[in-house]
Amino acid sequence: MKLLFAPWGNPTGWRELFYEFEGEKVKSSTSLRILQETIEPDKTIIVGLDTLAEEGSNYKEVKESAEKKIKEYVSKFGLKNYDILIAPGIGAFPSGIFHGDALDYYYNIIAKVSLNLLEYSDNTLDIHLDLTHGINYQTILTYRAIKEVLELFSIFKEIKFKAYNADPSLPVATDKLFMNIIEGTQSAPKPFDRRIGQRRTIEPIDLNPEERRKLFEKDLMCIREIRTSEILAFIGALYNGLPLALFRFYPDVNNLKEIISKTIEVYENHMDVWYKEKLNVRRNVKITEDFKVYVFAYLIATLLEASHLISCQKKEVTLPEIEKLKSSLFKFDERFKVRIEDDIHVLRKNLKNKDINKWQIYNEILEASLGEPDKRNFLAHSGFERNIVEIKKDEEELFLRYNEDKIETIADYCQSGLK
Amino acid sequence: MKLLFAPWGNPTGWRELFYEFEGEKVKSSTSLRILQETIEPDKTIIVGLDTLAEEGSNYKEVKESAEKKIKEYVSKFGLKNYDILIAPGIGAFPSGIFHGDALDYYYNIIAKVSLNLLEYSDNTLDIHLDLTHGINYQTILTYRAIKEVLELFSIFKEIKFKAYNADPSLPVATDKLFMNIIEGTQSAPKPFDRRIGQRRTIEPIDLNPEERRKLFEKDLMCIREIRTSEILAFIGALYNGLPLALFRFYPDVNNLKEIISKTIEVYENHMDVWYKEKLNVRRNVKITEDFKVYVFAYLIATLLEASHLISCQKKEVTLPEIEKLKSSLFKFDERFKVRIEDDIHVLRKNLKNKDINKWQIYNEILEASLGEPDKRNFLAHSGFERNIVEIKKDEEELFLRYNEDKIETIADYCQSGLK
Repeated sequence: MKLLFAPWGNPTGWRELFYEFEGEKVKSSTSLRILQETIEPDKTIIVGLDTLAEEGSNYKEVKESAEKKIKEYVSKFGLKNYDILIAPGIGAFPSGIFHGDALDYYYNIIAKVSLNLLEYSDNTLDIHLDLTHGINYQTILTYRAIKEVLELFSIFKEIKFKAYNADPSLPVATDKLFMNIIEGTQSAPKPFDRRIGQRRTIEPIDLNPEERRKLFEKDLMCIREIRTSEILAFIGALYNGLPLALFRFYPDVNNLKEIISKTIEVYENHMDVWYKEKLNVRRNVKITEDFKVYVFAYLIATLLEASHLISCQKKEVTLPEIEKLKSSLFKFDERFKVRIEDDIHVLRKNLKNKDINKWQIYNEILEASLGEPDKRNFLAHSGFERNIVEIKKDEEELFLRYNEDKIETIADYCQSGLK
Repeated sequence: MKLLFAPWGNPTGWRELFYEFEGEKVKSSTSLRILQETIEPDKTIIVGLDTLAEEGSNYKEVKESAEKKIKEYVSKFGLKNYDILIAPGIGAFPSGIFHGDALDYYYNIIAKVSLNLLEYSDNTLDIHLDLTHGINYQTILTYRAIKEVLELFSIFKEIKFKAYNADPSLPVATDKLFMNIIEGTQSAPKPFDRRIGQRRTIEPIDLNPEERRKLFEKDLMCIREIRTSEILAFIGALYNGLPLALFRFYPDVNNLKEIISKTIEVYENHMDVWYKEKLNVRRNVKITEDFKVYVFAYLIATLLEASHLISCQKKEVTLPEIEKLKSSLFKFDERFKVRIEDDIHVLRKNLKNKDINKWQIYNEILEASLGEPDKRNFLAHSGFERNIVEIKKDEEELFLRYNEDKIETIADYCQSGLK
């Protein structure tokens, strides 16, 4: 699946000139034409700003107005097979003034690009990003958001990534611009590593006490329904290479999905929109870093399910299931894979010829003395700490689980290293 | 140490307006004024493009012409305490035409920012990046280069990072721009993970056979003097958390430094500069990804020395030296630290009460059978593979070294996971 993303500023003034790439030459007002012809993407996604809007009595209409403008130019430029994604911008323009936090754009792109990419079940995603027409903070934040999302996807899929920028253009100097590849790499897998702060996906900028109470105690109530420590243990299980914990702390995907859609909905409901000489949009809340954590937890859980690795929380797991996770998931980082492999090897060796008819603590089976769990041991040995892992043998099949009395401690260990 | 970096396009047309940040308001043609007043950096580094040049009969003069122009505006804008760093750009402008590869800019920034940051011995670096005045590919490549360099520095120092961008500005709509923080984080440590390709820091774009031969067999001869497999083993030792290997493969720093300065010198010597209606600069070579690998190897080696951890190649190392590396260096990633700690713990336990008067293979000491080295074991246990590590005890002090007969195999294991 080949996707071409492109952040766009205001297309009104774009001059028609010759774009050159890979021996082809196309006259157009946008670099997307030649990229569509040479790359042949299955879909082009134009990332536009709501600041293009010229009218609207509420935010829904503002977004529609911005989208309409982009559609008008897309059709004028003769682009095909495209989607438009509108995200919140800031600044004062001839037709409108937009107040809010610059990073709202970034968090919106994180969520929207994530949901967009989840639609494709392909094992390989070929992502192209044309930065030619982005403006100001938009270019860098689109780049950063897409790169971060791709780092996570790269754990599960092969992700190719290329970024483009046309030559700098000055009307007087040339009517021919080359398309430059400014980045061209295999996207490298990187597990997500952030903590949740205040358990708030949205922070007030300008709300009265009553509105604040409604925001946190009603609108975003769904955040309270999910246990922060278990979400972070889940994120940490991937980050620290802990297969058994990844099964144990697999979260409620629907709840995470609700947090994401509810946050976007609540965010868009907290804007003042009015017309006085020109369009005015003022955002009374801003999106926070916590939002990103929930989006990435959702991504990990959804991709684990889509890869047929884990589809629900599981307390008791067979050793072959853990081995499958090792070979199919943790292959993304050789450093994890060899360590888990080594720990499984030791585990098998230790338990060979042992009779284990009922659940027993690992250390009991080894006839070692039982002690308090040790964090270093837990992390250094893929979570197979001998005082908290319980083991059972059933028809020669080994089953593993954590001692549920210690689950708080285990969740805490899993979060180690998260920032 | 507080540093403010800022990529600049052409300052000629920048309009004077009000910049607002943190309650302050300053009238200026550049966002750097208000940032200098509020952040109070120890030094401001303006990253300019050589495409600002209007004259020059050789490349040195071209760079001087560009620098002169920036200096003129810096002084007009009343900025203080600054350095200027000129990097190669591309494009057609009213006063000049510049042909070459867009990524030359990126590789130049990687090298120049690295060398710049190495000048500061502080344990904390507070890096600010103002993207307001960058143009086109320059903004994204400056951002990417600085972020990548900081990821490496974060292994050794505490690095704070903030990026800024003023509101989008349209002359007709406002004369007041807010400075937005578009990224504000602790920079996260990330070991470098790339391989060397063709052992060429520079590739010809347009050279005849004779020039090519001179380039590779004379100008860049210094690259041949360093063993690729040992450089990669060194990079891999940090990437895979292998303390003994990091001592063993510590490279010749002067040789790496020569590769860097020679590459920049050779690059700048391979440009055609002429004047016909306007200034013309054509680059006949381009810088490659291999260059980046040598720069990062140099960075790692230099920072290890500056942190008083390793200052030269060392084949025989005491256990306390390894423990120091574990606590002082590998603390950057808890996942490495706990594993190395665990492996040292096992090593100490195994060797307690053993008499080891002369160098002996680890497995011999344990009275286990000697076998071929095992890659999984090597990587899963911090490089302490029992068939290739030799140990000696001297006055109760444990010494470790690798079996030099197997050093090629060991170098190969170390590179595991590099891309």
